[in-house]
Amino acid sequence: METHNDRDAAGVDERGGQGVRRVAIVGAGIIGSSWALVFARAGWEARVFSRHHAVRDSLLDRVTRAADAARAIAPALTPDDIVARITLAESLEQAVDGAEWVQESVEEDVAVKSALFADLDRLTSPGTILASSTSSIGMSCIAESLAGRARMLVAHPATPPHLIPVVEMVPAPFTDGGVTQRAFATMRAVGQVPVLVTRERPGFVMNRLQGALLTEMFAVIRDGLMSPADVDALIRDGFGLRWAFLGPLEGVDLNAPGGIADYLARYGFMFDQMARERGATEPVVTEAIVATLQGAMRARLPLEGLPARVSWRDARMAALRALRAGGT
Amino acid sequence: METHNDRDAAGVDERGGQGVRRVAIVGAGIIGSSWALVFARAGWEARVFSRHHAVRDSLLDRVTRAADAARAIAPALTPDDIVARITLAESLEQAVDGAEWVQESVEEDVAVKSALFADLDRLTSPGTILASSTSSIGMSCIAESLAGRARMLVAHPATPPHLIPVVEMVPAPFTDGGVTQRAFATMRAVGQVPVLVTRERPGFVMNRLQGALLTEMFAVIRDGLMSPADVDALIRDGFGLRWAFLGPLEGVDLNAPGGIADYLARYGFMFDQMARERGATEPVVTEAIVATLQGAMRARLPLEGLPARVSWRDARMAALRALRAGGT
Repeated sequence: METHNDRDAAGVDERGGQGVRRVAIVGAGIIGSSWALVFARAGWEARVFSRHHAVRDSLLDRVTRAADAARAIAPALTPDDIVARITLAESLEQAVDGAEWVQESVEEDVAVKSALFADLDRLTSPGTILASSTSSIGMSCIAESLAGRARMLVAHPATPPHLIPVVEMVPAPFTDGGVTQRAFATMRAVGQVPVLVTRERPGFVMNRLQGALLTEMFAVIRDGLMSPADVDALIRDGFGLRWAFLGPLEGVDLNAPGGIADYLARYGFMFDQMARERGATEPVVTEAIVATLQGAMRARLPLEGLPARVSWRDARMAALRALRAGGT
Repeated sequence: METHNDRDAAGVDERGGQGVRRVAIVGAGIIGSSWALVFARAGWEARVFSRHHAVRDSLLDRVTRAADAARAIAPALTPDDIVARITLAESLEQAVDGAEWVQESVEEDVAVKSALFADLDRLTSPGTILASSTSSIGMSCIAESLAGRARMLVAHPATPPHLIPVVEMVPAPFTDGGVTQRAFATMRAVGQVPVLVTRERPGFVMNRLQGALLTEMFAVIRDGLMSPADVDALIRDGFGLRWAFLGPLEGVDLNAPGGIADYLARYGFMFDQMARERGATEPVVTEAIVATLQGAMRARLPLEGLPARVSWRDARMAALRALRAGGT
C-alpha cells in the first residue's frame, strides 16, 4: 500500500517537478464540466476529454459562465483565471497524461463505463486514481476483471459539484484502503466534502435519502393532503433553512434540552407510527439506534454546549433569510 | 361568513380606532416567545400570558436576545423597538382583551388545551380567531364540543417561527372557511408562509416529511452503511444547500431537461425499488402522480424557463456557500 507521502513524491515525478497537480476529466456534460471547474478553481490543471464534439466545443464557454455565477465561492479568482487552467484534450491518452486523478462522468451505462475503465487502466500509471461519478453503478460492476481495479472507486457528486460539495465515496471490496484514504485527501484538497459509503448498494445513500423524502411527498400529494406547491414550501420555507447549516440529526439534537435521545423520547412514537402506516414491519426508533445517535452527537458536542449552538444556528438562519430577501 | 373587510372594520372598533392590531400569546416557552417576536416585529401589539411565573418573568429577556440574533431579518428595527410592543398580562382575560388573534402554545396535552380553548371561547368575542401551535393534536380533539369552534384551527409553526416562516394551517371539519381565509391573510401579514393541510392526520404533513427522512437515516446508520456524522453531511453539504431556495420537487424539476416527468422517467425506478425494500406494497412513481407533478410544475414555470431558473439557483447557492464560509 502506498502511503500519502509516497504518492506525493510520485506525483512530482509524473508532473516533471512543476508542482501543479493534474486531473483528467472524461465526459464533459453537466457533471464533467462542473468537476473541471472544481479542480481548476483549486489550482489544478484539468485536461478534459469528450467523445462528443459539440459537448467539447462548448465546454470552455459553459465553465466560464458557471465560474462567473459561482464567483462568490472564490472571489479572488476571475472566471478567466479558472478557465486558463482547463485544456481540451484531443484523445483520452492525451487527457490522462501525467494525471494523478481521473474523474469519469460519461453516460450512466455499465457497458460504456466498463470499456472506458479498461482503457483508463491501460493508459495510466499505477499511481493514478480512477474515480467514477456514477450515481447508481457500483465499481464492482464496472471493473471486476481489471488488473488495476485496486485503484478504482466511485466518487459520486451532488449536482453540480462546484456548488454542492458533498461527494459519496464508494470503494468496491477490491479497492485498496490506501487508495480510499488518498481519494478522501484529494477531495478535501479541492474543497469537497467526501463521505464514506461502506458497502455498494443501489442508490448508494444520497439518493436513498432524497428518495425517502420524495416518496413521502408523492404520497401526501396522491392522498390529497396537501398541494405540490405547499409541500415544496414546507421544506423551502421550513426545514431547508435549518438543513443549510445543520444535518437533520443535529437539527433535532438542538430541539430538546437533552439532545436527540430526549427528542426521540418525546416524538419518536410519531416516526414509528408513520413508518408502520407506510408498510414498515420493524420499529424505527429502537433503543440501539437512540444510543448510537446520542453517542455520536455527544462525542461532537456535550449537552452543555447546546444553547450556544442554538444561538449560532439562529444567527445563521437569520443571515440566510436576509440573503433570500435580497435575491428573490 | 365574515369577509376580510368586515373583519378589518370590526378590528378597528375593538381596538378603539387606534389602528394597531393586537394578538394574545398564551404560553411563553420556546414557541410562544417566538410567536410574540413574530407579531411584534410586524407591528402588532402582543400581550403574553403564561401560568408559569418563571417563564413569564424571563420572557422579555429571551425575546430581546432572540430579536438581537435575528436582526438581519428586520434591520430597521432594534430589539428594543420590538420588545416595546410586548406586554406581560396578569391573567388570561387581560391577555385576550381586544385581541383579533389568539395563538396558544402551551404544553402538548389534549386535556390542558381543551380546558384552555373552553376558557378562550368564553373570554373572546366571536370575531377573534383562536389558533393552536400543536404539532400533533387535531382541533377536532381539542374543541369538538365548544360553541365557538368555527373560529378555531391549528396553526402549527416550525421551530422557531421567528426564523422559519412556514406554518401548517389545519382547519377542523367544523372550522369556518372564511376563518381559514382570514387566518391565511393574518399569517402572511406577519411575514409567515401558511400552507394548507386539507385533513387532520397524525403528524400533519411537516413531521411526516421530516419523519420520512429521519427514518431512512436511522436505517442507513443501523445497517452500518454510513456513520451518523457523514449521513448528516449528506444533507448539510448536499441537498440542504438547494432546499434553502427550492423545494425538493422543484429541485428535481431543474435536474432534467424535460422537467420532473423527465427526471422521474430516468430515476423513478430507484425510488420504487427503495420503497419496496422498506415494505411498500404499492408503486410510488405512478403515471397519475407524474402527471400531477408535471402539471403543477409547468403551471408555475414553462419548460423554456428552466435554464434561467437553473442560473438563478446556482447564483443563490454560491451566495449561500460564501455566507457559510464567512460564519463557521
